[in-house]
Amino acid sequence: MAYSAEKLSEEKVFKDPVHRYVHVRDRVIWDLIGTKEFQRLRRIKQLGTTFLTFHGAEHSRFNHSLGVYEIVRRIVDDVFAGRTEWNSNDRLLTLCAALLHDLGHGPFSHSFEKVFGFDHEAFTRAIILGNTEVNKILAKVSPDFPKKVAEVIEKTSEKKLVISLISSQIDADRMDYLQRDAYFTGVSYGQFDMERILRVMRPREDQVVIKKSGMHAVEDYIMSRYQMYWQVYFHPVSRGAEVILTKILHRAKHLYEQKYAFKYEPIHFYSFFTEQVTLEDYLKLDESVILYYFQIWQEEKDPIISDLCRRFVNRNLFKYAEFDPAKEYKKLAELTSLFKKAGIDPEYYLVVDSSSDLPYDFYRPGEEEERLPIHLLMKNGELKELSRESEIVDAISGKRRTDHKLYYPVDFLLDDSSKKNVKKQIRVLLELEERPL
Amino acid sequence: MAYSAEKLSEEKVFKDPVHRYVHVRDRVIWDLIGTKEFQRLRRIKQLGTTFLTFHGAEHSRFNHSLGVYEIVRRIVDDVFAGRTEWNSNDRLLTLCAALLHDLGHGPFSHSFEKVFGFDHEAFTRAIILGNTEVNKILAKVSPDFPKKVAEVIEKTSEKKLVISLISSQIDADRMDYLQRDAYFTGVSYGQFDMERILRVMRPREDQVVIKKSGMHAVEDYIMSRYQMYWQVYFHPVSRGAEVILTKILHRAKHLYEQKYAFKYEPIHFYSFFTEQVTLEDYLKLDESVILYYFQIWQEEKDPIISDLCRRFVNRNLFKYAEFDPAKEYKKLAELTSLFKKAGIDPEYYLVVDSSSDLPYDFYRPGEEEERLPIHLLMKNGELKELSRESEIVDAISGKRRTDHKLYYPVDFLLDDSSKKNVKKQIRVLLELEERPL
Amino acid sequence: MAYSAEKLSEEKVFKDPVHRYVHVRDRVIWDLIGTKEFQRLRRIKQLGTTFLTFHGAEHSRFNHSLGVYEIVRRIVDDVFAGRTEWNSNDRLLTLCAALLHDLGHGPFSHSFEKVFGFDHEAFTRAIILGNTEVNKILAKVSPDFPKKVAEVIEKTSEKKLVISLISSQIDADRMDYLQRDAYFTGVSYGQFDMERILRVMRPREDQVVIKKSGMHAVEDYIMSRYQMYWQVYFHPVSRGAEVILTKILHRAKHLYEQKYAFKYEPIHFYSFFTEQVTLEDYLKLDESVILYYFQIWQEEKDPIISDLCRRFVNRNLFKYAEFDPAKEYKKLAELTSLFKKAGIDPEYYLVVDSSSDLPYDFYRPGEEEERLPIHLLMKNGELKELSRESEIVDAISGKRRTDHKLYYPVDFLLDDSSKKNVKKQIRVLLELEERPL
Amino acid sequence: MAYSAEKLSEEKVFKDPVHRYVHVRDRVIWDLIGTKEFQRLRRIKQLGTTFLTFHGAEHSRFNHSLGVYEIVRRIVDDVFAGRTEWNSNDRLLTLCAALLHDLGHGPFSHSFEKVFGFDHEAFTRAIILGNTEVNKILAKVSPDFPKKVAEVIEKTSEKKLVISLISSQIDADRMDYLQRDAYFTGVSYGQFDMERILRVMRPREDQVVIKKSGMHAVEDYIMSRYQMYWQVYFHPVSRGAEVILTKILHRAKHLYEQKYAFKYEPIHFYSFFTEQVTLEDYLKLDESVILYYFQIWQEEKDPIISDLCRRFVNRNLFKYAEFDPAKEYKKLAELTSLFKKAGIDPEYYLVVDSSSDLPYDFYRPGEEEERLPIHLLMKNGELKELSRESEIVDAISGKRRTDHKLYYPVDFLLDDSSKKNVKKQIRVLLELEERPL
Repeated sequence: MAYSAEKLSEEKVFKDPVHRYVHVRDRVIWDLIGTKEFQRLRRIKQLGTTFLTFHGAEHSRFNHSLGVYEIVRRIVDDVFAGRTEWNSNDRLLTLCAALLHDLGHGPFSHSFEKVFGFDHEAFTRAIILGNTEVNKILAKVSPDFPKKVAEVIEKTSEKKLVISLISSQIDADRMDYLQRDAYFTGVSYGQFDMERILRVMRPREDQVVIKKSGMHAVEDYIMSRYQMYWQVYFHPVSRGAEVILTKILHRAKHLYEQKYAFKYEPIHFYSFFTEQVTLEDYLKLDESVILYYFQIWQEEKDPIISDLCRRFVNRNLFKYAEFDPAKEYKKLAELTSLFKKAGIDPEYYLVVDSSSDLPYDFYRPGEEEERLPIHLLMKNGELKELSRESEIVDAISGKRRTDHKLYYPVDFLLDDSSKKNVKKQIRVLLELEERPL
Repeated sequence: MAYSAEKLSEEKVFKDPVHRYVHVRDRVIWDLIGTKEFQRLRRIKQLGTTFLTFHGAEHSRFNHSLGVYEIVRRIVDDVFAGRTEWNSNDRLLTLCAALLHDLGHGPFSHSFEKVFGFDHEAFTRAIILGNTEVNKILAKVSPDFPKKVAEVIEKTSEKKLVISLISSQIDADRMDYLQRDAYFTGVSYGQFDMERILRVMRPREDQVVIKKSGMHAVEDYIMSRYQMYWQVYFHPVSRGAEVILTKILHRAKHLYEQKYAFKYEPIHFYSFFTEQVTLEDYLKLDESVILYYFQIWQEEKDPIISDLCRRFVNRNLFKYAEFDPAKEYKKLAELTSLFKKAGIDPEYYLVVDSSSDLPYDFYRPGEEEERLPIHLLMKNGELKELSRESEIVDAISGKRRTDHKLYYPVDFLLDDSSKKNVKKQIRVLLELEERPL
Repeated sequence: MAYSAEKLSEEKVFKDPVHRYVHVRDRVIWDLIGTKEFQRLRRIKQLGTTFLTFHGAEHSRFNHSLGVYEIVRRIVDDVFAGRTEWNSNDRLLTLCAALLHDLGHGPFSHSFEKVFGFDHEAFTRAIILGNTEVNKILAKVSPDFPKKVAEVIEKTSEKKLVISLISSQIDADRMDYLQRDAYFTGVSYGQFDMERILRVMRPREDQVVIKKSGMHAVEDYIMSRYQMYWQVYFHPVSRGAEVILTKILHRAKHLYEQKYAFKYEPIHFYSFFTEQVTLEDYLKLDESVILYYFQIWQEEKDPIISDLCRRFVNRNLFKYAEFDPAKEYKKLAELTSLFKKAGIDPEYYLVVDSSSDLPYDFYRPGEEEERLPIHLLMKNGELKELSRESEIVDAISGKRRTDHKLYYPVDFLLDDSSKKNVKKQIRVLLELEERPL
Repeated sequence: MAYSAEKLSEEKVFKDPVHRYVHVRDRVIWDLIGTKEFQRLRRIKQLGTTFLTFHGAEHSRFNHSLGVYEIVRRIVDDVFAGRTEWNSNDRLLTLCAALLHDLGHGPFSHSFEKVFGFDHEAFTRAIILGNTEVNKILAKVSPDFPKKVAEVIEKTSEKKLVISLISSQIDADRMDYLQRDAYFTGVSYGQFDMERILRVMRPREDQVVIKKSGMHAVEDYIMSRYQMYWQVYFHPVSRGAEVILTKILHRAKHLYEQKYAFKYEPIHFYSFFTEQVTLEDYLKLDESVILYYFQIWQEEKDPIISDLCRRFVNRNLFKYAEFDPAKEYKKLAELTSLFKKAGIDPEYYLVVDSSSDLPYDFYRPGEEEERLPIHLLMKNGELKELSRESEIVDAISGKRRTDHKLYYPVDFLLDDSSKKNVKKQIRVLLELEERPL
């Protein structure tokens, strides 16, 4: 029997708190899960620093990847199977792309990518196409299968319908993470009626569409997404932890460039510092490695890296203030100058962080091409873009919301053992105390 | 105002998926949560290797510790407050002991304690009484307060009622972990009606007792505990992962004793290898450190430690067979000898693991003194031991159940590139294949 | 001890699937629940005909009334207690008004009120002030207490804060019914984080306000409300059942006025037919009485009432079509005329039903005065109207949505044993079949 | 296409709070649900008088019947389909029997059957085989199909495997009602991992068996059943309501036999009083009819029937005491005599009610043949009776538990306006007050 068609003698299941069970029958999927590259996702948290705000959010990308696979499996096996618009030959491709879509994520990806200038999507491609266990398994299906999987994940494949199941404004990725992140954090916002949405999904030539009768469930899903972004993903405390993390990486790179003598050699970081990361180095990096370094760097004599590491490890985070760049840029300049005077390096200790989200958008040619709109399938077979039918979605469609915060170490500012007057000025500017009369 | 009586200006809450919210009003509790020794619990998984079987079980002891605190807080503030049998002066002591009861746990405690000969309870005491942030805060309450808290956790305190809230056959510790571990693994077994149990708890001089009307909820709790032990805590796959972990530690110690030259110096382990662990060393050890070593030890040239580390990191675990020591000790001896012949060191690759549990027991003087029975408070004020009233509990009371498994690396045994005949003999003995005619 | 201050010797609890437990300590509340007027609410479904669409929606107003009481009890006892803006003397008044706010509801209130020209609010007042068990208990608190309770429910009381807890755009009534109706129907839309909302409610002189930090929870609540209205409360199938129910009552009244000789004397209806309903008659009427009549009226020889009753009892409902009154009034006139020709009385068998809702509104002086806006309590103590802070709420604020449906008995139209041609014309107009070429 | 094979053009779903959705594809099933005999189950509560104790328990047998159908549908379509031991020709028979298994239930069946001497199972058969809408639909499948369905429900069919899915110690009926009744009452006891049990069910020639790996889930199910019986189904307050209900029926029959002139003719009861119930009469009787009579009988001049009806309608129930028939039969005789002296008819006002349950039993030839044991399917293909493998089940297997309560109207006994001394004696005997010195 062709490897691609092999089934396990007995279905395997993973107990999953979100979908109850994840079901595996295909030998290919089972083998992929067993690879070391996929198992590595167990050592990378799904929500990075969010666990420092929502203590339940300690779940890994391994969890989420299985979840996305399971949702896609249910769509293709329970909803699409047998429909003429669905090409059943695309089934395995779809399942593999779902399972592997986050394979290239590293620990605290966002900060790493910003500081060391790469993107995890390139690594997803590299793992799938490189000399890896994952590649060997995919290549057993057919020599060009790894490439096909990579193209779906990169959205360059011609299989638009398959792509839309994994990355669109209503895809299995989002449906899993909203529910999963809600479950583990314990917030109620991520709940929506996925059962209903799955039941009304229909395959069309270049995208998945939603039967009109499921419109309200989709509205609810979009609202869930909106709430999760602002309540959880952009929570100012987690962003503050990420600010510190990013600054640690900055400092380490800076010290390396300055030929600082590290007490413990940061061997796992060298290729990152020089921005020549190999696949092998990348795969060795996981959160335990990062946290190990943050632990030992607490003992470095450089006061900035040791302070920042202590802050991150012991959760002694920065405080934050609302910040409006349009109106307060002068205040920021003034604060920067005062921080310098106070001996607190503003490069590391006075940080503006901005978060921004667009809850839903219809198609705007030439702008953000990946923002493919959600289409409703009307009773007469026509397709209509969601915001034309839903008043709720129309009301929020295309409205970008941005939030800026200014982070700083309040403990330093309250320590009056030195630079008392400058610090007082800073505190007044930050409204930590009343302006003296 | 006395530090012990200080309240936060506004109640703080932690979003908790199990109890919805954890509420903190007391300054002392807030300060304890902020210490680095308590934050360290974020880096230690509640269920050790269980996440390799139930992928949701990635939650930390930090989570659980907050949960135990919250349950105890509800008991003392919502149920006991105002009852004459309850001494409200014991409130803060109870809350602190609940919060800190697992403070001395290290990563994968069970394996570490077995291999390096110490117990985490000694470290709980050491952290509370030693030169730590936790100790400083407790001592601010009163100089003898740290000792009092330690005594409750060690069960040497004269405050028997307080002890019974934190460690007895129906305590806040068990009530939290059953529910929490069920939530994160996704199994349904750990659910019971805790609301009901809390409502019927009553303080008595030397223990907490349960009003008769809550008996069925207690039965359900005991059954939950039974199921969680056999379905989750003693799951053979997780135990198999723990077998590997223990053997890695064994091997590392052995190599150290043999003066083996490690490629990377295991500096964090030296004091463990020599069994002279200081508090400072202990506190540095968390799961990221352990996993870091397991990662780098994959590159050691010693074939046993590198193989075992690869197995653990990539989840390539041992297979297992049922094993009855009473009947099969000869077979084990035979297997041991065959493993040696096959060049597979039985010390590391043929391991018997035994798990054993007693779901509930009444008081048996002179046996296991900590097994204090659960008492029901009858309408007439009398106390009756639970198993005298509950047929279900009586039926299982005192019945110890033990399970033995034999673990081995099936991939080694299937590799016929060497020692083909011996391996065949082993496979037949392990019933991996039919005995040839 | 004053009756108003009497506590039960032991707290009583009702197991409630939505709030887990409903707690009662006050003697007055316990006594009110035991009255026959309150027990009568067990025989009136919370959602009228909705159970014919969502089979789980069989819960009664008794359920809901306990739920509203429990929410209010938690607000006043757990959130407001001890705050200076809250007058603890209003506690019992608030609890009683919450418990009794729906006391005057009859079976299928909406239809009854429309056909027989009264409103349930007048009966709530009548029960509270009349010669009833409820009145006796309230009057034991103080002679003017019944009147005070009635005034809160009628919103004529000067105690604006108390009123706002029971009827405003974010009140205990709505918070209970959204969650309860979601629970019993099984839809997920009614879920929102009530725990969070309760925690951030604050008493102000003339209303309850919400701390700014709870804004997202309130947004979610408003979206829940919106979804429940359109997904559940205005579900076209339930509205179709209500159309039939209303027409049965119309027909019965009409037959009575025509001096039709009922096979079974509708004694319980006489005072309704003459629109001179006494309190005693009203209290006798519950759903079992109505359903009893619908059962026996199936045997009446009047073909309309017997047909409609059979339809209702056996759930053989009308079909519906979208209907736009502005554009299709001519078509309706044409259909009316054709129905007459076909011998199908359009008065009973061709019915337009309109539903309309305003999800949230800010204050529009002189329009709908009861639509008091929700106010957020900002950090600086200021109050801000919700839609000025929330983009989501602003987007939907004040936008009324209306839906019209046209109901008809499709089985009659498909029965070609008579008036074949006329029926064909009707079917074409209703787009049940293609227009012949 | 044969009627039996007809599918709906689009799958229909019912939103169900317990199973999320109930799915219908078969035309036969859809038609059966639409019959008036099946719709009648909406007017019969699943748990009789339990709603007077657990206010959420207002759900109907219609609910439960859909649930049993859905579970069986999932077993045959998702688990059994394609297995050689399963005869797919039995599919429709199984679905119909599941849907219709409770069709003959009347309102408050237990009391009605006891007083009027019939059993609902005979009526299930009568509806399926008689002149009904249900019969017409089943007969369209094939002329002998109604009989086949009836035989499965009656357990006389030769299709033992099909029977075991619908009535055995682990059947779809129990699995639905435990979960459903738990959901609506709000108690947590009825929860067990049905998903797991369904996955490990396997068809065998004469029964469904459970793979060994699912044993713990079955243990949990049996414990759930045990708890639901004693916590919900046998709750003493509900039983007290049923005592009153039974006594009302007794009294009505007695009055009829005494030729008492009812103020309102109880026409719906005549055939019951004479124990010559026709199918037509039976089908007219639902809970609204019963409750209608209980309402109007409150106005009868017979003091017993009017008192009992007032008690039932207004939930003014009897009080109860523990009662041990073996030891207290003399006390009962004494009480009976004193009640007579006090002018309180003991026939109606002093009632012993006994409840008894056997949580699980293995096969005891010649005793209760329907108690077919649960069999585990071992890895080697052998079957083993559950209690031989499960210590927990073994511990409770075959242990019958019985509970007796003595019910009486405490308000009558406290009313000292007449027979003061006798009543005092009664109160002392019932331990309502201290024996005078």
